[in-house]
Amino acid sequence: MTPTRPLAVIVLSGGMDSTTVTALYRSLGYDLVLLSFDYGQRHVRELEAARQIAAHYGAEHHVIDLRSVGALMPGSALTDHTVDVPEGHYAEPSMRATVVPNRNAIMANIAVGIASARGALVVALGIHAGDHAVYPDCRPVFREALQQSVTAALDGFPTPVIETPFIHFTKTDIARAAVRLDAPIRMSWSCYKGGAKHCGRCGTCVERHEAFVDAGLVDPTEYHVQDEAAV
Amino acid sequence: MTPTRPLAVIVLSGGMDSTTVTALYRSLGYDLVLLSFDYGQRHVRELEAARQIAAHYGAEHHVIDLRSVGALMPGSALTDHTVDVPEGHYAEPSMRATVVPNRNAIMANIAVGIASARGALVVALGIHAGDHAVYPDCRPVFREALQQSVTAALDGFPTPVIETPFIHFTKTDIARAAVRLDAPIRMSWSCYKGGAKHCGRCGTCVERHEAFVDAGLVDPTEYHVQDEAAV
Repeated sequence: MTPTRPLAVIVLSGGMDSTTVTALYRSLGYDLVLLSFDYGQRHVRELEAARQIAAHYGAEHHVIDLRSVGALMPGSALTDHTVDVPEGHYAEPSMRATVVPNRNAIMANIAVGIASARGALVVALGIHAGDHAVYPDCRPVFREALQQSVTAALDGFPTPVIETPFIHFTKTDIARAAVRLDAPIRMSWSCYKGGAKHCGRCGTCVERHEAFVDAGLVDPTEYHVQDEAAV
Repeated sequence: MTPTRPLAVIVLSGGMDSTTVTALYRSLGYDLVLLSFDYGQRHVRELEAARQIAAHYGAEHHVIDLRSVGALMPGSALTDHTVDVPEGHYAEPSMRATVVPNRNAIMANIAVGIASARGALVVALGIHAGDHAVYPDCRPVFREALQQSVTAALDGFPTPVIETPFIHFTKTDIARAAVRLDAPIRMSWSCYKGGAKHCGRCGTCVERHEAFVDAGLVDPTEYHVQDEAAV
């Protein structure tokens, strides 16, 4: 009989943080259930990236349809197509326009419900320190409160632990980890716009490129602005 | 200019508890956004009930599609059609088969995200003391932890308060409140099975009927077993 490996449920956006989380838990010997969320983001390019990354690892992957939730959240540039995606640095106040309120709590709690039903030990999220300034649901105090809620909600039932291995990492630390863990970063997608290539101008593109430069690593991403010799 | 009324987002299952919560917030003068959740429950009878109740109040109503979540939760009698719905009293251990893990956290967090985007002051849930024995996500400790999570996740953004006006009520207390508030209980649906009438035998039917009997009130519900002279 094949020994059972521990199971981890990972929220995989298709970006470089959650791609690196996936690489980490695979390297730790977990079986993986990868969950991506369609909340009506402007483009499905990141969901395609998530599918490719799951296929790369031969892992179970599901896209959770939350479009009926996103449709009821006016005001975020990610769900409301009348709001422009801001350009510039990721930590700037203008990036507040990209907040989808309570998004991490929604995705994490769904992952927790599925993890409990499936007997998974872990729910892993790719939140990191670079997000703390703009996104309150990426901070340690949120992670602690979320774990308390999960523990209370599942008293007497299988209760996964919320793990956020990069919560104290900068994006640069994640770039280094990605390279060490051989994460398929070329397949990942960060850009908030949704062209054929990363735009190179929006907050997530700027942050992604900066991380590799700061780490002294080659950024494997193709950016549209490189073609324009603007980088 | 018409003065703006405060807005409440209410999780409306279509059962008598959330129907009575709806009656309460309407009586308090709130504008209402009613949210029902389709997580692949065995039947959509309760969603039809929710639509009727929303129409009764002329309130905004949305059905949130979580079928892709329910499909990944094996083992609950409510989402997994290979598991039988247990009969008998609602507080018995056999009713554990009706638990959908972390369900209230999932629904409440979605309601919170929408409430924050819409500027609603309140997210109201119909959880009550009669559910505490079997469902950990109906207990006061869960409500407190959920509020902490919401407060952390929305720091700096509009943050609704989670209100659970019946958390210390028995089902009998709710039956009394329903009558006082003129809640449209006849339109509501409790039965875990999904016939033309309430079955009268499953846990929620037993609990519903008992509440009216204990309160000394007329139960407005038509039960299938009454036809069989079994009640």
